[in-house]
Amino acid sequence: MMIIEVLRLFHRIRRDPRISTHCALVSRAFGAEKMFYSGDKDSSLEKSVNEVVERWGGPFSIEYVKSPVELIKEKKKQGFTIVHLTMFGEEKDVKTDKILILIGSERVPIEYYKLADYNIAIKNQPHSEVSALALFINSYKINKDFVNVKQKIVPQKQGKKIVKL
Amino acid sequence: MMIIEVLRLFHRIRRDPRISTHCALVSRAFGAEKMFYSGDKDSSLEKSVNEVVERWGGPFSIEYVKSPVELIKEKKKQGFTIVHLTMFGEEKDVKTDKILILIGSERVPIEYYKLADYNIAIKNQPHSEVSALALFINSYKINKDFVNVKQKIVPQKQGKKIVKL
Repeated sequence: MMIIEVLRLFHRIRRDPRISTHCALVSRAFGAEKMFYSGDKDSSLEKSVNEVVERWGGPFSIEYVKSPVELIKEKKKQGFTIVHLTMFGEEKDVKTDKILILIGSERVPIEYYKLADYNIAIKNQPHSEVSALALFINSYKINKDFVNVKQKIVPQKQGKKIVKL
Repeated sequence: MMIIEVLRLFHRIRRDPRISTHCALVSRAFGAEKMFYSGDKDSSLEKSVNEVVERWGGPFSIEYVKSPVELIKEKKKQGFTIVHLTMFGEEKDVKTDKILILIGSERVPIEYYKLADYNIAIKNQPHSEVSALALFINSYKINKDFVNVKQKIVPQKQGKKIVKL
């Protein structure tokens, strides 16, 4: 079974609220189990994500970490492969079954490039951590059955339909 | 040849600057030619996108439209298939060679669901317009050769390398 966790580096409350929320939602939707984040502790980010999990199902959790480097070292000990997504990395597949994905910005210190087992580019072009994360996680085609689902979409040709469970 | 253009609906300067910028960068990186946007006219959004095109190459442009409905009708006349990306839509492929993609938010008025030829979900789960756009455009595997490139990444196992051309 594939286990994917995400570490969002250097969250800044003023600049990133929606981007970090989107990172968490992408992580959940495509089959990751958890998103850690470092930088500013942000109760409103946590609240948004927890509300989505509450309504649309889990398992998924968000957790603040003070020291991202320590988390990375701990995850390595637990057998996780550390994959840093960066436009500066190599475009290639990573074959393993336990991954901690690091996502940051253009300004991630070189230390993280060295801590990572792989620095992977989802295209060597500037785009977004949200899209890089989605394409990378989606490449593993994880088929997650959400549990504790309170509401669900009924796909429509035109319009919106949600059923409460 | 595949032609993809994007219409970002209802941009709000205060709330969306980075999300809309990421939508434009994703559009460019994965092979779309242009992003229109409606809502608040935003010269700083346009500047950010134009600077990326200037440095990393085109062709790609961003254009403000006052009336998104008129643009959609005009594009229909030009033979574009209108695909609205929404978590409420159907998960399926769209086979055509000229697409205008509509992206908005959860609050897109029902009128747009009806104007669209297809309402497509990249998963019937909440995530992000940035990831939906990336996965949808990427499914067409457009191999765009960027022109007027001033700088380019040389992929690295560890670290960052940019060459000026």
